[in-house]
Amino acid sequence: METNAMKQDKIVLDHGSGGKISHNMMTDMILPLFNNPTLSKLDDGAALTIAGKRLAFSTDSYVVDPIFFPGGNIGDLAVNGTINDISMCGANPLYISVGLILEEGFETEKLQKILETMAGAAKKAGVQIVTGDTKVVPKGKADKIFINTSGIGLIYNGVELSGSFARPGDQIIVSGTIADHGITVLSAREGLRFDSDIQTDSAALNTMVKSIVESECDVHVLRDPTRGGVGTTLNEIASQSNVGIRIREADLPLRGAVKGTCELLGFDPLYIANEGKLLAFVSKNDAEQLLEVIRANEYGKDARIIGEVVESDPGKVFLETAIGGSRRVDMLAGEQLPRIC
Amino acid sequence: METNAMKQDKIVLDHGSGGKISHNMMTDMILPLFNNPTLSKLDDGAALTIAGKRLAFSTDSYVVDPIFFPGGNIGDLAVNGTINDISMCGANPLYISVGLILEEGFETEKLQKILETMAGAAKKAGVQIVTGDTKVVPKGKADKIFINTSGIGLIYNGVELSGSFARPGDQIIVSGTIADHGITVLSAREGLRFDSDIQTDSAALNTMVKSIVESECDVHVLRDPTRGGVGTTLNEIASQSNVGIRIREADLPLRGAVKGTCELLGFDPLYIANEGKLLAFVSKNDAEQLLEVIRANEYGKDARIIGEVVESDPGKVFLETAIGGSRRVDMLAGEQLPRIC
Repeated sequence: METNAMKQDKIVLDHGSGGKISHNMMTDMILPLFNNPTLSKLDDGAALTIAGKRLAFSTDSYVVDPIFFPGGNIGDLAVNGTINDISMCGANPLYISVGLILEEGFETEKLQKILETMAGAAKKAGVQIVTGDTKVVPKGKADKIFINTSGIGLIYNGVELSGSFARPGDQIIVSGTIADHGITVLSAREGLRFDSDIQTDSAALNTMVKSIVESECDVHVLRDPTRGGVGTTLNEIASQSNVGIRIREADLPLRGAVKGTCELLGFDPLYIANEGKLLAFVSKNDAEQLLEVIRANEYGKDARIIGEVVESDPGKVFLETAIGGSRRVDMLAGEQLPRIC
Repeated sequence: METNAMKQDKIVLDHGSGGKISHNMMTDMILPLFNNPTLSKLDDGAALTIAGKRLAFSTDSYVVDPIFFPGGNIGDLAVNGTINDISMCGANPLYISVGLILEEGFETEKLQKILETMAGAAKKAGVQIVTGDTKVVPKGKADKIFINTSGIGLIYNGVELSGSFARPGDQIIVSGTIADHGITVLSAREGLRFDSDIQTDSAALNTMVKSIVESECDVHVLRDPTRGGVGTTLNEIASQSNVGIRIREADLPLRGAVKGTCELLGFDPLYIANEGKLLAFVSKNDAEQLLEVIRANEYGKDARIIGEVVESDPGKVFLETAIGGSRRVDMLAGEQLPRIC
């Protein structure tokens, strides 16, 4: 597959997948133009210093289809997503903006419900929605509703996290079951109803990150594995830190119903989006302590240590399979699931 | 016309006009949900205090059609628009985020050109694009490209501006000719070619605002009259400050070609969008000095004093017509020009 963004004369769905082609569009087209050290770090948000204060700043647009799905809707997804991107910078999210693009004819009642959900999600997480914008385009020029959220947080004192800080020996913790969100949206979109147990994991992880910071464990990287899933996120970190990563299939937490749906439809849960999970890279000595800290959080009960950072094979991720083999987990090439967030 | 947003069961184009129905959606649907003092001020951006520092935070989505037009494209519009919203808070814009929503099949070459324009606009204004996000939706689910920009600025020491600070006696300055952007986009969209003289006024006003602040003139309000035009913006300020406003038709700076197009097509230039102009409300004693300061800026050469704030008719705006009469300028009700920004 041709993954050089410059060599494709039309935008394809893969440009928004969060996988290899997205990554290449960023490195080939965007970085050379908007060249600055902050953007070049390729972290979830930007860590900035303004008037001596360290702030995190992040943006995400949400185009999920369908807009309502088991466990949530586009509204809480948009609020929690930006809260999490800011949190992954080691910051306390404080303020959020909301940019709505609405299709003419969209039902006001649905908009009201989405806005209520956003207000509830912001309140629950203790962040304020302080500025916004609404645009309406003629019928057929957008699909119901797209939401952008951007946010600002204050980076915790003394905390410095980046996808480029992973070191050999680091243990990798995932805060809970993987692939729940992506499989939920897919099931809702396709009208599949395998199991009522499947619902989005959309959640704000700011309190979990606060506990992680307060634990004073030696954490190097926090990242939420959204589009592209755990597999793509680990590849990004392996590449940013120039280290190898080994994970163990047997240790990946996966709900039975999600596992069954993945097997039935031929999806690899490593590439399916999560919206309320984080990956933490922590020094070996502090790993068990951090695991307990994460498990004590309401969204971390199923946390597990899933692997470690190694010196060999820098930039690459390998999975030890349940039957004892090893296979390379590459960055997602091609769009498994469009419009998942 | 029914302008109560809650009483309409479908979203209409007017919900995004920046006029009366937009305003009512904000006050009827959004404010009651996201209730906080910052949002309730209804200024162009939010003035926040984080760790003792006063910051401005703003967001805007751009859905302009066509995406290329004389003098610019959606890219510089998006960068300059957020720079201006932050500037109007009396802040120095520093950092911008970019959220792209692309339609599958959009030409990579056009995207490249738009991104180059954004990079150029950011560089010219001295702001950095530090974080971003790209989503792609299937063909037919969006129209080519939508761009959200959000931004952060540092509010100048001692400066406090708000649409609620206008006082009787204040003189009102507009920084140049009005209606250029809206008429340019309309002409490009409809394939009209009245005059090659018409082009967007899209420009970053941060250096003008810096000069205004440094002049130490007693300025109470800065606002950029974008969607809804000068007429709607003045109504917002009259309402926020609970004052009356009188402007003089004869003093409104208007390019001949723009005036001609408005007359031909029956548009009122007071309701047509501007993308590189500001309105300044200043104490009478400082008005002439501020006018000179604004005229000294590259984007302020055609600045004029167009009217003043009065005690009578609070919340209302009146126009003294060129032939000596007076008519009420209400907030725009109904969408004159959809997808103008």
